[in-house]
Amino acid sequence: MDDAFTLAIVGLGLMGGSLALALRDGPAADRAPGFRPGRIIGVSRSTETLAAALTAGAVDRGTTDLAAGVADADLIVIATPVRTILRLLPQIGRHARPGALVMDLGSSKAAICAAMADLPPGLQPVGAHPMCGKEVAGFSAAEAGLYRGRPFVLCPLERTAATAVETARALALAVGGRPLVLSPQAHDRAVAAISHLPYLAAAALVAAVDAAGDPLAWSLASSGFRDTTRVAASDVDMMLDILLTNRSAVLEWLDRFAGQLADLRAALAAEDEARLRTQLAAVQARRRNLIL
Amino acid sequence: MDDAFTLAIVGLGLMGGSLALALRDGPAADRAPGFRPGRIIGVSRSTETLAAALTAGAVDRGTTDLAAGVADADLIVIATPVRTILRLLPQIGRHARPGALVMDLGSSKAAICAAMADLPPGLQPVGAHPMCGKEVAGFSAAEAGLYRGRPFVLCPLERTAATAVETARALALAVGGRPLVLSPQAHDRAVAAISHLPYLAAAALVAAVDAAGDPLAWSLASSGFRDTTRVAASDVDMMLDILLTNRSAVLEWLDRFAGQLADLRAALAAEDEARLRTQLAAVQARRRNLIL
Repeated sequence: MDDAFTLAIVGLGLMGGSLALALRDGPAADRAPGFRPGRIIGVSRSTETLAAALTAGAVDRGTTDLAAGVADADLIVIATPVRTILRLLPQIGRHARPGALVMDLGSSKAAICAAMADLPPGLQPVGAHPMCGKEVAGFSAAEAGLYRGRPFVLCPLERTAATAVETARALALAVGGRPLVLSPQAHDRAVAAISHLPYLAAAALVAAVDAAGDPLAWSLASSGFRDTTRVAASDVDMMLDILLTNRSAVLEWLDRFAGQLADLRAALAAEDEARLRTQLAAVQARRRNLIL
Repeated sequence: MDDAFTLAIVGLGLMGGSLALALRDGPAADRAPGFRPGRIIGVSRSTETLAAALTAGAVDRGTTDLAAGVADADLIVIATPVRTILRLLPQIGRHARPGALVMDLGSSKAAICAAMADLPPGLQPVGAHPMCGKEVAGFSAAEAGLYRGRPFVLCPLERTAATAVETARALALAVGGRPLVLSPQAHDRAVAAISHLPYLAAAALVAAVDAAGDPLAWSLASSGFRDTTRVAASDVDMMLDILLTNRSAVLEWLDRFAGQLADLRAALAAEDEARLRTQLAAVQARRRNLIL
């Protein structure tokens, strides 16, 4: 794939917008000079978003017409919520030119990779998920540095050509990410633990304090509560798509989490200081060793 | 209380060290000129901590001898973990000079205020809790700005003289805090919700991922997991003291939290999208309205 290739990004929110900005302003040129796309086409339902992306120089051309937007692309990146990706894949399959690489940036992978298997045989599907969410959404939140240093998970299908996987890897490197090839199932299980479960825990914390109707509690909330519940402000549509397409893994982690909570509760209820200390010291050591 | 008064700070960790630094370098001089203490005596078990505090100019004198350290003080601030405060109060009661104000900075208040009721009648007890923890501990983590803009809860006893409460309020203002008088019970219930419960939730998240033994999950952890679990790295001794002295309030909030988690789980298990959306949208709106 040379400098003249055409990239279409479908969805110019936080992820898609940041991808475009990273390829234009980010570490792309130095790191993977052959990767810089000759042309970036932005596809969005919103003419305002397209105007903002054009003004920022993120895209060369913007369109609300999916078919027209993807028709000439060598590489199509779908950067919408998960269930929108599932809905758009068949349409993209009909309009993409033969040989095009079709990638997505959705936060759950099993359902998407299963749907990608139904794409016409001439297309090269690669599921992807860069590990760099924020609790804010939209092109206005996009930034060229979003992917820098973060794992960029790639889930090629069995049918996907090695050259297509290499192109996907080059794209990940071009935006500063750390490409990592995984099965959709391994990905979904891991992100249920470190992303989807923490979201539900944060949501339940906010809901518990809210349900108690104690304004004093809110007024005393400090940095601890702020950080622990930050992800509870995430976009609801995006999170619903993730939870509903990764339901069984999330339910399993919810049960493991409830079990750990119950253990801590039992030790506290029994004033079993030795047991509580052992549990909390292990957690502290684990968390302190985590480089994030 | 004029400029010549003597302040003893027992414990020069994050809270006590920051208090000393704030009175020396912070907004004290501008905001409450009459409050600046004539002399600050630091009391610590650790000669290394005393040396560091002296070098930093945080204290005028340091001693490992509690009795000698508090004997001349007009105001004694106990800035140790909660159960150490409970252990030191009787000793301080024996050695403090008549009329001295005895304050603490512990994170739970009912047990401490109950113990303060047993101080000799000549002393003026005020329980206090500035809402500004960090997950790091020790004098090396102390900073003059720690209290700035944060609620500084004061729990005077019935017997406490109004002038003593005013002095405590002036101290809170002098370090940049926002003084707020509360009953120990109202304080403990509120901080169980926004501090002690989030700590246990974060601990259970780390424990759940750790127990599953999936190195991939750790390697994909991103800013969401980092923030949601930050407080799980808190000092274990400090947290054990808090949990065990605020046990009944924490257990109540744990049950409310478990109830909210179970509700979210049920909606997800049933694929009840409408219900899940209602719950998560309410949480999102609440969290976005929270100014922290």
